[in-house]
Order: sequence, then C-alpha cells, then structure tokens
Amino acid sequence: MNDSKNHLLIDACFGREVERTPVWIMRQAGRYLPEYRAIRADHDFMTMCKTPELVTEVTLQPVDIIGVDAAIIFSDILVIPEAMGMELQFVKGKGPWFPSPLREAADVNNLRLVNAEEDLKYVMDAVKMLRGELNDRVPLIGFSGAPWTLAAYMVEGGGSKNFKTIKSWRWSRPDLLHTLLRKITDAAVDYINAKIDAGAQVIQIFDSWAGLLDEEGYQEFALDYASEIIARTRRPEVPMIYFAKGAGIWLDRTVECGADVIGLDWTVNIETARQATAGKASLQGNLDPTALYADPKEIRQWTRDMLRAFGGRGHVANLGHGILPDIPVDHARAFVDAVKEESLKLNPTPSI
Amino acid sequence: MNDSKNHLLIDACFGREVERTPVWIMRQAGRYLPEYRAIRADHDFMTMCKTPELVTEVTLQPVDIIGVDAAIIFSDILVIPEAMGMELQFVKGKGPWFPSPLREAADVNNLRLVNAEEDLKYVMDAVKMLRGELNDRVPLIGFSGAPWTLAAYMVEGGGSKNFKTIKSWRWSRPDLLHTLLRKITDAAVDYINAKIDAGAQVIQIFDSWAGLLDEEGYQEFALDYASEIIARTRRPEVPMIYFAKGAGIWLDRTVECGADVIGLDWTVNIETARQATAGKASLQGNLDPTALYADPKEIRQWTRDMLRAFGGRGHVANLGHGILPDIPVDHARAFVDAVKEESLKLNPTPSI
Repeated sequence: MNDSKNHLLIDACFGREVERTPVWIMRQAGRYLPEYRAIRADHDFMTMCKTPELVTEVTLQPVDIIGVDAAIIFSDILVIPEAMGMELQFVKGKGPWFPSPLREAADVNNLRLVNAEEDLKYVMDAVKMLRGELNDRVPLIGFSGAPWTLAAYMVEGGGSKNFKTIKSWRWSRPDLLHTLLRKITDAAVDYINAKIDAGAQVIQIFDSWAGLLDEEGYQEFALDYASEIIARTRRPEVPMIYFAKGAGIWLDRTVECGADVIGLDWTVNIETARQATAGKASLQGNLDPTALYADPKEIRQWTRDMLRAFGGRGHVANLGHGILPDIPVDHARAFVDAVKEESLKLNPTPSI
Repeated sequence: MNDSKNHLLIDACFGREVERTPVWIMRQAGRYLPEYRAIRADHDFMTMCKTPELVTEVTLQPVDIIGVDAAIIFSDILVIPEAMGMELQFVKGKGPWFPSPLREAADVNNLRLVNAEEDLKYVMDAVKMLRGELNDRVPLIGFSGAPWTLAAYMVEGGGSKNFKTIKSWRWSRPDLLHTLLRKITDAAVDYINAKIDAGAQVIQIFDSWAGLLDEEGYQEFALDYASEIIARTRRPEVPMIYFAKGAGIWLDRTVECGADVIGLDWTVNIETARQATAGKASLQGNLDPTALYADPKEIRQWTRDMLRAFGGRGHVANLGHGILPDIPVDHARAFVDAVKEESLKLNPTPSI
C-alpha cells in the first residue's frame, strides 16, 4: 500500500535512513489558507467533513500550496461521538460542540455501537477518493481522537476552561468513565481499521487533553486505552503516531504505548525526549506554532536549531500543535522549505 | 516578625523539622465557602479587594472554618497592572479583565511606575489589619503575580484560548516584551517589599501561565524575571514560594530560581520532583483540585498517599491549583484534616 513516490514520512516513522527530514503540519488543511477559506465560505464545517469531493479538495491544498510531505484527511475527531449517537452542532467561531453532553450513566449506556464502514462511510469514501487523486505523490494520514480526549468533549460538551466535569468523573466516577472509554475505544478501533482498509497509510491518534490529567490518571484513563487501540489496529506497513498534548512530563510512560512515533508539543526538551525514547520510537514535532508569527528568516533559524537537536533520522518535522488561522501562508511555507533544505545539511544521521 | 504560635508553614518552607505537615489551599478564601458568597453577594470583586475590612473578613474565614495553617490575603494578581494605569473591569462570571489591553509599544511606554506604598495602600492597610486580627494565630501569606503571567493578561486582556498575542510577542517582538517585563518586575519588587514591610510573613509568586512557553522562552521570559524578584525581595525570615503552573517539565531549571519552596501542580510526579530539588528547595502541593469532588474517605486516602510520597520534612501540603467554587466545604475540610492527622503518622522525617 505504501507505494508513494515520496515515502520519507513512512521511512522516518519507522526510523529508517532518509535523505532529508519529512515535514507536515497539524491543521495544514485549514483557515490560514485563503483557498480553504474560499471553500469554507460556501459550506458549513460538517457538510465539508461529509462531502468527499470537498474533503479531497481541501486535503490536497497544502500539498500543492506549501509542499508538505504528507496529506492528512480533512475531518474532525468528533465524528466518532456523532456516529455513537450524539448530536453534534457547529457554531461559527465556537467550533463543534454537543448540545446534550453525557451526564448520567444512562447517557453512556445509550451510546450506539459504531460500524465505521457504514456509519462513517463518508470518511472512507473520502479516503478512497483521496488515494486516487493523490496518485501516490505523498502518503495519506488518517487520524482519530483518543478515547480520553473524545470522552472529555462528550462529557463537557465542547472546550472548557477547566474541564471539571470530566475531571470529576476521573476521581469520583471512575467506573462510569471506564465504561465510556471502553465504548469509545471499540469505536475508534473499528474506525481506524476501516480507514486503513480504505487506504490510509499512516495513523495519528490525537490525545489533545491528556495534559489535564495527573500521572496515574494519564496511565489509567488515557494511555492504556491509546495503547490498546494501537495494538488492535497495527499493520506491518502502517506507522502509528500518538500525540498526547501536555503529556511531555510523562514521556517515560508514553513511549511504552507501542506507537512508532511519539508526537511532542513545543514544551518538550528535544534532548530529553531523545534520551527517553532512544531505540523505542521516532519523534514528531515540535516548533511552537506561534513561532510562525515571526519573520521567515527567523523561522528558518529556529527550524534549523530544531532539526539539529532532533539529529535527523527518526524525526518527522511538525509544529508542536496545530497551525493558527492567522499565520501568513508564506510563513508556513518558510517552515516547510526550511525543513527540506536545512535537513539536507545535517551530518550523516546517527542511528537512534 | 514570625512570632506565630503556628509556625509550621515557615518551618516547612525552610526545610526545618516539623511535627506535622502544614496545609493551606490556593483560593482558600473563595466561592466554595458560603460565608464568602454571602459577603460577595453585597460587594463587587474589586470593591472587596480595596476594602481592608472586607479583605480581613474573607481572609480569616478559611482559618476559622476549615482550619488551614496559614492565611493568604484576599486580593487579585491584577492589582499591579491596575496600579500601572490599566483600567480593570470585573464582569460577573468572566472574572477581571482589561478592556484596553496592551497592543503597541506606546501602550507599554505609557505604563506608570508604581509606588506600592501609595498606589496599593489598600493592600498594605489590609495586611496590617490582618496581622492585628490574626494575632499570630497563623502566618500571613502575601502574593504577587509573576511578570510573565501579568504580561499575558495585560496583552491578552484576560484569559484566552491560546494566548496567541502574548505568544506572538515572545517570538516576534521579544524586545518589546522585555521592556514590559522589566516594568512589571520593578513594580512587583516594590509591591512585595511593601507587603513584607506591612507584615506579610511568607510570599508566593504565581506564574499561572508559565506552561504556555517553550523551555528557552520559560527561562528568558518567565524564570529570569521571577528569579530577579526573589533576589530583590529576600529577607532572612520570609520564605518565598514560586508556583509556575504547567512548568513541571522544566523543574531542573525552576529549582535554580532561588525560592525556598517550589510549588507543584498536580501533573508533577512527586518522586521526580524530590530528586530534582533535593537539598535545594522545599516543595508545595499537589493534589489535583478535582480530587476534592470525591468522597471524604477517598480524599483521605489520596492525601495520605501524597504525604507519603513527599516524605514529610520540606513539604507544604496544598492542592495543585486553586480550589474550585463548587467543592463542598466538608471535602475541603476533609483534605485539611487528613493532612493534619495523617502527616503525624509519617515515619521520622528524613532530611532532604
């Protein structure tokens, strides 16, 4: 399946030797691109997610416009809860949210089992269409929200200042939380397997709210479920990336999750991360997304520093979180170009 | 100055032997107390901050009601920017905010020098009144926002989803940010010195938004200024606590700031923290504030686990962040009682 002419990302994920470091950007198909905004102006967010032609168009934009080494299917992590039966609304300027969040055991019990091939057919159709359109130019990344992060949204209803409802479940209703996480895990496994069957060549699992937890809670309510997903969806040639934002402090635990690549946010010291993961996983990241507000010349300098710190082999260049909507396109391109050009100059990459 | 009958907090801050672990709670004078809400119902937030009689009353409430080992003066970190000339508004349910945040160099240049004895006389009056009312029952903690955290509020105007304006200053306007941080640092030094002169017996510096930064940015824009404040306000018998939320990943750096005590949020592994700070500083924290949603019996168990992990000497028990407004008072008291009773049972405390 991985016949892409550009297989830098796959090779870097697996820690193989590469001629240069591959680069993609979280939220690369997004509002910082005028071409995206032009399409978004005519369609609401969920309509875009559910229309394979639109998904295909916006997914390909950053490949063509800023030259990233991978496409990542345009979608939202909340399609799984919606498929489980939760009403999902999208309010302009607020993002997607659930008007009826989970509050009682009955709400959790009422969640539906997901058959991804049917319930999320629109995603699989988009994956297939994208593989056709991409024609193996670059690999296609599929993604899923991690159970803890999806549970956080499902219980809170959306983003939150301190996520105190899901956090109160962590401490005072752990059994109910485990019931919920079990259901989401099964749905995510089915979803990811269907995505790979449809043609996704790399999988990233987003655990955006891992950093809300304490260390033991992270292990029990986030990492154990993410690890289970990785074990149950693993294919020999499809690398798995686990990105737990705010979890850099627990990297010794995270690296045991079985992922080929550990995503790092911008708070993580690269040397420390390399020591914690040496021989166990490749690394992805981690320039601060707000560094792209600066001049392209400075972006290049910081990108070079980052590439040197990662040392080449076993590194997928990315930001430490999603690109922000008001970043100039030229600055995003400056980051991508800097990775491509500066990583060629790295010394022969030592084995990690 | 430290003639308090209860000097457990002072002793623990300095790493001296104590018969049991002292405990206080961030935001202990706050909305979870019905007695606080009764007063707050009749007065707006800033009026309360500026009326020494009201400050005294609500500051003493948790000492009387839940039995903490210290009082911390009721106030807000944003009184410094207000004294520097920024209009501060308080909107119900939103918290304090600045309707005209700093955006240009001229805004920074227009900030006033602070003479804390005059401009923040209402705080000093409250400190003096509190010392009289406390009559050395427990020590009085004074506090200040750290420069980075105050700058974040002053530039964003209030809380923010991703603090992208202050973060863009960090990367693309570092000179302007340093100018701002310099001004805030000088104001904070004057403020803390005045507070100590008025009678504050312990100082805590809150760097609530440290975790927004990258490691180098934390050193340059947060920690260096906090360290300067500590150096310029140090008195032999007044311990300094530095609490940088979200900065646990950089504890090796934080411990060099010169504070007697490093505050830990709930994400930090206690063993790791003890190793990183051994012989250099005491530790404060760090039970997850949302753990207090659980039953008192469980709160006691987790508190006991926490106390054992910290090992006694050189530990100030606290939550890992402020107590939430909807925590039952009995649960807060259960935490305080558990610290008092369970820490007595710890083995003779080893020197750290």
